[in-house]
Order: sequence, then C-alpha cells, then structure tokens
Amino acid sequence: MPKLGENLGEFGRIARFLAPLATSPGAYGLTDDAATLQIPAGDELVVTTDALVERVHFLGDDPPEDLAAKLLAVNLSDLAAKGADPLCYSLVLSLPCEVDDSWVERFARGLEDAQRRWGIALLGGDSVSTDGPITLAATVMGTVPAGRMVRRAGARAGDDLYVTGTIGDAALALVQIERREPVDPFLRSRYRRPTPRLDLSRWVRDHAHAAIDVSDGLAADCNHLAAISNVKCEIDWASVPLSVPAALLLATDASLRERVLAGGDDYELLIAATRAPPGGTRIGRVVAGKGAEILDSSGAPILLARTGWTHG
Amino acid sequence: MPKLGENLGEFGRIARFLAPLATSPGAYGLTDDAATLQIPAGDELVVTTDALVERVHFLGDDPPEDLAAKLLAVNLSDLAAKGADPLCYSLVLSLPCEVDDSWVERFARGLEDAQRRWGIALLGGDSVSTDGPITLAATVMGTVPAGRMVRRAGARAGDDLYVTGTIGDAALALVQIERREPVDPFLRSRYRRPTPRLDLSRWVRDHAHAAIDVSDGLAADCNHLAAISNVKCEIDWASVPLSVPAALLLATDASLRERVLAGGDDYELLIAATRAPPGGTRIGRVVAGKGAEILDSSGAPILLARTGWTHG
Repeated sequence: MPKLGENLGEFGRIARFLAPLATSPGAYGLTDDAATLQIPAGDELVVTTDALVERVHFLGDDPPEDLAAKLLAVNLSDLAAKGADPLCYSLVLSLPCEVDDSWVERFARGLEDAQRRWGIALLGGDSVSTDGPITLAATVMGTVPAGRMVRRAGARAGDDLYVTGTIGDAALALVQIERREPVDPFLRSRYRRPTPRLDLSRWVRDHAHAAIDVSDGLAADCNHLAAISNVKCEIDWASVPLSVPAALLLATDASLRERVLAGGDDYELLIAATRAPPGGTRIGRVVAGKGAEILDSSGAPILLARTGWTHG
Repeated sequence: MPKLGENLGEFGRIARFLAPLATSPGAYGLTDDAATLQIPAGDELVVTTDALVERVHFLGDDPPEDLAAKLLAVNLSDLAAKGADPLCYSLVLSLPCEVDDSWVERFARGLEDAQRRWGIALLGGDSVSTDGPITLAATVMGTVPAGRMVRRAGARAGDDLYVTGTIGDAALALVQIERREPVDPFLRSRYRRPTPRLDLSRWVRDHAHAAIDVSDGLAADCNHLAAISNVKCEIDWASVPLSVPAALLLATDASLRERVLAGGDDYELLIAATRAPPGGTRIGRVVAGKGAEILDSSGAPILLARTGWTHG
C-alpha cells in the first residue's frame, strides 16, 4: 500500500499533476464543469470504458506509473480492435486517503508517458476519496470514418482466425506471483505494461471482418466473437503463439495450458479475416455452426474448467 | 447494505438489466468492445464525468433507484450549466459481491426512469467487482452548437448573479440525518433526487455570460466562477432563495447558515448574466476585483469556516 504523505487535496492535485495533461483546448485546463470535443466531419466517435480495481485487477504495490499505463492500455486495446484512431480520455480516480501526493505524481507521469506514446490527451474526469481500494476508470474516445468501426459481429464461415503477439504471458506472470516464485521479467512486463495494438488499428479497419481484444482470455473472447457473429470458431492449440518464457513454463507444467487459454489480460487482437495481419499468427478458422472450440493436436476439443467457455 | 442474493454474474447482469437501456444503435446492445456516436454537423460534444462513492457521497441503504437517478443528475447538472443538450452516457459500476441482482435491477430501473425523463441513453461502460464500497461513475455526453458551450470564465463586472431554485436543502437534510432527527421529506428528496436544471439549458446557452452548477456549495462554486473569470462576485445573503423547510430550520438555528452556503449538493445553477433566467433569483453582482464575498444585511462579509472559500 502507498504510504501516508503530503496531501494537496483534490483541487491542488488536479491543478498540479493532472491539468498539465489536459493539453487539448476543449479541456480548458480542467477548470470548467465539462470539456468540449470536436469530431472531424465524416468521422464518428468510438467510445470505450474500462475500470481497474486494486486487489481485483492489480496489486496495491504495483508502481503507479504502470497502473496509469495499464489503465490507458486496456482501453486503447479496445480502440485498436475496433480499427479506431485514439483521441482523448476522461478519468475517474477513487483514492483512499493513504494515497499521497507522490503516488498521484507518479501516476500522472505514467499517464503523460502513455499520452505521448499513443497520441491522446486528458479531457476531464473526477477525483473522489474512498475508504476502499484504489479504483481507476477511463473512458477513452477515438474516431473512425463514419460506419467503419469493426465489430465483434461480422466473422463469416471461410474466414481465418488470427491473433497478434503472444498469448498467456500475463496469466503466467500471475501464476508465478501466486506461487511466490521469481517472476520472469518479460512475463511481468506483459502483465504490468500491456501494449495496445494500435499499430494494427488501420489494418483492422481495412481488412478485418470481425475483431475483439483478448482481455477475458482467448477462449472466452473467441466465444464472444463466435456467439455474436453466429458462427463457430475453431482454434488449433498447437498454433497458438507463445513467448519463449511461456513455452518454457508450459514445458515443465502442461496443466498451465488452461491458464494460457483462459487467463486473459493479453490485450492482443483476435481477428477474423481472409488474410494475415502484419506479424499475426493464423490460429484457426471460422466455420458454420455455433460456439468456439480449441482443438488439441489430434483434433479433439480441449475442455476448460474455468471460463465463460460453456456459454457457447 | 444490500443483502446477499441471486447473482447472474457480470455478463448476465449486463445482458438482463443494462442492455435494454442501451437503446441507441451505436451501443450495439452492449455486445461489443466499444460504442459509436455520431455528432450532428455543426455541433460539438460536451463531456463531463462525476463519480459517487458509498459512505462519501451516499449512504449504503439509500434506495438504488435514487442512486441511479442521482448519478445521472449530478452529471446532467453540469451539462445544464454549460448550456448543452444531453445525449448519452457511459457507466462504471464497482460493486461488492454483497450487492445482489435485485439491487442491480432496481439501479437499472432508476437509470431507465432518468433516461426517459432526460432523453438520454446508455452507451456503454464497465462493471467490476470490488472488496470496497459501491462506487458509481458516469461520463455523460451532450452537444452544443460548436463554440457555444457556456464557460465558468466569462463573468464581467456589471453582470448580475442569479441562482435557480433554492439553496441548502440537501445540506440541511444531511444535518438532520447526522443529528438523527426526523428528516423533512422535501429536504430528503432534494438530497436523494436532485433535479438537473436542463429546463434552463437553452436559456443558459443564449443568455448567460458564465455559469456553474452548485455542487461544492454556493460559496465555493461562486469562488470558482470568480477566480476563473478574474472578477469579484458579491452575494447578498438576504437574497439567497431558501425553501420553506430550510427557512424554518434556519429560524430555529441561525448557525445553519454556514451549511446552506458551504454544504453543496444543490445542483442548481449559478449564472452571471444581465437578465434573469426564468424562475431564477438575483442574489448579487459581479464587480471588478478578486474572489467572492457573501454579505450580511449590514453589508459586512460573512466568514465561513469550512469551504474552499479562503482560496479566493
């Protein structure tokens, strides 16, 4: 838990640490009741909201810079999956009184880094006190040309299924944390500092029939995509891309396969398309039918105990 | 505290209770990673975010319908002060596991009533679990013709200051709750069910030089308006409009004046203009200078112990 320290109060913290992040003219330096936002003609706004709660989504001693980066990344990941260009965000900070100014300062530094990296700016928000856990929420806004947002719905029989990056890294970091083992630095960085695949946003918009970001776990998110597209998704376990540290862990404990598939927090993109996204891996196909299946090397479905899996 | 009961889980609750509120086509029935929003040509978006935390902003046994109404009202109040027309909102629910489905159902019913009354629709959001207090946040979006948002900045020497409705009702309800006295029903309804002054939104846009909603307390919010407008605001205490129950309470305990002026939670509008808003009361004037003063009937400034007051 953060330590008790200097406390500027809500208005002081907003003025000192957050107002400098509100660089767009419509944010009025966070000095008004509301902000304004102009959308370029021909575009529409894409809006997504995600929250992170201490002890549920992160640990109280995670560095505040990382929490800020993760809060924006999990939201920007949704924009990437929808083929949107990021624009700005609104923020809700619910902070216990033990959180001191230096925590807020470090959190703001994390926001600033993320803003620079992803080309977004703080638009507004609210800061409230709580007697509970640190709770962070952001509503992130982006744009697409009107009517061009890529949906979860839209996968068609005959499409291939692709995933970006590697799957299971964050989930395996959590396994090591739970087991109180030394945590592999690569896996830890994938857990703490996920990278939204905004580099693929334009490609998704131009080529994906359907897309979703992998946050609930590859199995569950594949199931979401299949259900809403009214198709069946088949994934070959042998094709699911793993990082070297993840592959090494799985080699010593095959039961971790379930955590890789169901753990979530990947923030990669699952895409239904007829061609491969740059750097993406083909992991399966869309067929007529219902639900999602992950097949082992003999073609038999892998049953998972813990996931939204059975919903399909 | 709500009682333990049936629990559909996050996805089940969203599908059953919240998806029916997502009536705009761009919300995709809450089945996607993000929502889309088209802004009419010539308009710009006005965005505001406010959060409510159990035990800080409301009591755990407040009816969930009222909490939903209040969450939207406090945000819509900001839109009214900016002269904006409401459009839609995104929601963050952080709920402890003790909150059961019937609580969520009642909360959703409160949202539905407010949606119908104020002409808004749910656009998206996130629902997360917490081991802390119920925490509710909304980002509410509205529109104004581009460049027409009314700012806090803009009050000029020579303007009159007006306030809508009556001041201090919610603060006095809290006094009665704190004192474990019977709570006057009118004051209680003003605390639990504030009415955003959206009826005046268009008037504000057409006639106000500056406006702010009274949420931090008349004294503090008047000070915010004065500071950012770089003027001095003078308020005559004798002109501040009180409801009959509030006036009766003050008649028995003059020390409650401070709670009326500093208590907040009014969600009325403080407006600097050269003519009266419909139903508004002239409470003072804008002069050259700095800060805000509330004057008693002899013209002497009233000093308040607890507020952002001294900042001016």
